[in-house]
Amino acid sequence: MASGGRAELHALPGVSAPPAETKGFFFQQTMVRVKDPKASLDFYTRVLGMTLLCKLDFADMKFSLYFLGYQKPEDVPEDPVERAKWMFGLPACLELTHNWGTESDPDFKGYHNGNSDPRGYGHIGLVVPSVADACKRFEELGVEFVKRPDEGKMRNIAFVKDPDGYWIEILTPDNSKMFVDWGQEQQAPAS
Amino acid sequence: MASGGRAELHALPGVSAPPAETKGFFFQQTMVRVKDPKASLDFYTRVLGMTLLCKLDFADMKFSLYFLGYQKPEDVPEDPVERAKWMFGLPACLELTHNWGTESDPDFKGYHNGNSDPRGYGHIGLVVPSVADACKRFEELGVEFVKRPDEGKMRNIAFVKDPDGYWIEILTPDNSKMFVDWGQEQQAPAS
Repeated sequence: MASGGRAELHALPGVSAPPAETKGFFFQQTMVRVKDPKASLDFYTRVLGMTLLCKLDFADMKFSLYFLGYQKPEDVPEDPVERAKWMFGLPACLELTHNWGTESDPDFKGYHNGNSDPRGYGHIGLVVPSVADACKRFEELGVEFVKRPDEGKMRNIAFVKDPDGYWIEILTPDNSKMFVDWGQEQQAPAS
Repeated sequence: MASGGRAELHALPGVSAPPAETKGFFFQQTMVRVKDPKASLDFYTRVLGMTLLCKLDFADMKFSLYFLGYQKPEDVPEDPVERAKWMFGLPACLELTHNWGTESDPDFKGYHNGNSDPRGYGHIGLVVPSVADACKRFEELGVEFVKRPDEGKMRNIAFVKDPDGYWIEILTPDNSKMFVDWGQEQQAPAS
């Protein structure tokens, strides 16, 4: 199917053209729960280069939300309401939910990353200019790898773990031909 | 904290300025596993208005990847390699992984949405121009709700379920003041 044109892609079972009523919709956020916001903020800002865009606290429900994205720190508005409104207007934000107390609760078992039973959620994926350079730096910083770029069947992509064990794919659009060729080779009729 | 300025936000424990080595990184994808691509494609295109951007097949590992986003169908490139490269260059894509056979396997128990034990992943969130209008339409289309806009403590946001039971938040930046005010009220000293 990767070999087909656009019409073939959009003729797949289930695919519709976007209805007029969905105009203006966009994919704003992806939320995961985290045990310790200090560890997560360190990882997502210092290691992955995201910026903390906004924090919202809900004291009566004892949780806080941290929103991160690839905006510049100096573009984050000063005023809290403006800041929240600006952030909710951005696509591709990562939302970290911190239920207060988990970071120091000896009975807290940690969160489930979705990649062992029961499975479901898989990962978020970051594009980087160079998978090799990014992963060399991650190694130096002591980041835990699920898969290094030179391991496994899928070369030139990597998976690392965040402090809660969630997977993060590291990829580049330069891999696209590899993926498409691979699918075609596998589906070629046996000779 | 929502009441603080930007400097206060960026002085939170763990927060760093983005290192130069992370220049060019962006948040490209969020991946969840789905049981039946036909049902998921129907939901994400017809109900939520996304466009199918790319499909990649990995026959020897018996899975396919479907990438969706809020691009226009007519902007999807014809050529499969160009298409994959274009898609991997876009932020905020949703990646659906289909492990072949789950859609017709009577023993397949379904995927875990992360919001019951063991918890972890929470949801993706879509911004819509009007939460009320979007949810009225979702009701008419028979979409399953986790929370309607007029239910629970958080008014004017909703959560719906996709065919696998994953949660999707429906929100608008117009709610921002409500969130920030709420946090401030709750944290005001008792009088």
